[in-house]
Amino acid sequence: MAEFIVDPRIEASSVLIGDLKLCQVRLQNDARFPWLVLLPRQAGLTELIQLEGEDEARLFWDVRVAQGALATACATVLTRPYDKFNVANLGNVVPQLHIHVIARHAGDDAWPGPVWGHGTSVAYADDVLDALKTRLSQTLSRAMG
Amino acid sequence: MAEFIVDPRIEASSVLIGDLKLCQVRLQNDARFPWLVLLPRQAGLTELIQLEGEDEARLFWDVRVAQGALATACATVLTRPYDKFNVANLGNVVPQLHIHVIARHAGDDAWPGPVWGHGTSVAYADDVLDALKTRLSQTLSRAMG
Repeated sequence: MAEFIVDPRIEASSVLIGDLKLCQVRLQNDARFPWLVLLPRQAGLTELIQLEGEDEARLFWDVRVAQGALATACATVLTRPYDKFNVANLGNVVPQLHIHVIARHAGDDAWPGPVWGHGTSVAYADDVLDALKTRLSQTLSRAMG
Repeated sequence: MAEFIVDPRIEASSVLIGDLKLCQVRLQNDARFPWLVLLPRQAGLTELIQLEGEDEARLFWDVRVAQGALATACATVLTRPYDKFNVANLGNVVPQLHIHVIARHAGDDAWPGPVWGHGTSVAYADDVLDALKTRLSQTLSRAMG
């Protein structure tokens, strides 16, 4: 069985936060949008509907936890409001199955359009990135018990 | 309990195909992209994670059937290839919970970018729209038994 490896393009644009039931969770290093990327830890997946059996429920659980963690991080670390979450699998550029969970704010840089392909990403300041990593990984750990 | 009503903006840009387990399924009337919109038939939903219990599995089932129906329609009615499906809840413009299922083709009008907010929609020719409605609703009916 092939090994799960994160696509180098995703690895380069994001930082590892931790593991949930099905997915590895990464924070997109783009200060314009609070944005997590969830990668099911299985090799060879490209489409959402390839998930089978209990993995569907695991993904829903992971999305719920990730969204909650992002909401907490927005409220505490970033002190930034959010109005809607975008939850999406596109995969037009990187085929490896990955699900975006993005906190959107009316008035953010791409609102109301989608974030993908919008302008150029802006890296977080080091201290903000550290604080986000700490807060997000704490929330994930607590959820995993 | 509030009644399920389709947002008038979604109603205006799409045509009714039929019902699956959880969702009403509509075809976006945009000949540039084979594109279904799934609306859980419950009032007041805005976020994916508001779905509870069995509705998670119902949504997955609906997406699987919708994607299969779209693939069949691409292969038969549209004779148009597809390379990836985009499955997404955004809701930045229309808050009512709806899930996009879109057949993407490397070389389509927005590839590899997202379709939302890209250019102006192009209505299907009447005969193509009729053929699509027939084929899609047949596939949905068969899946529902």
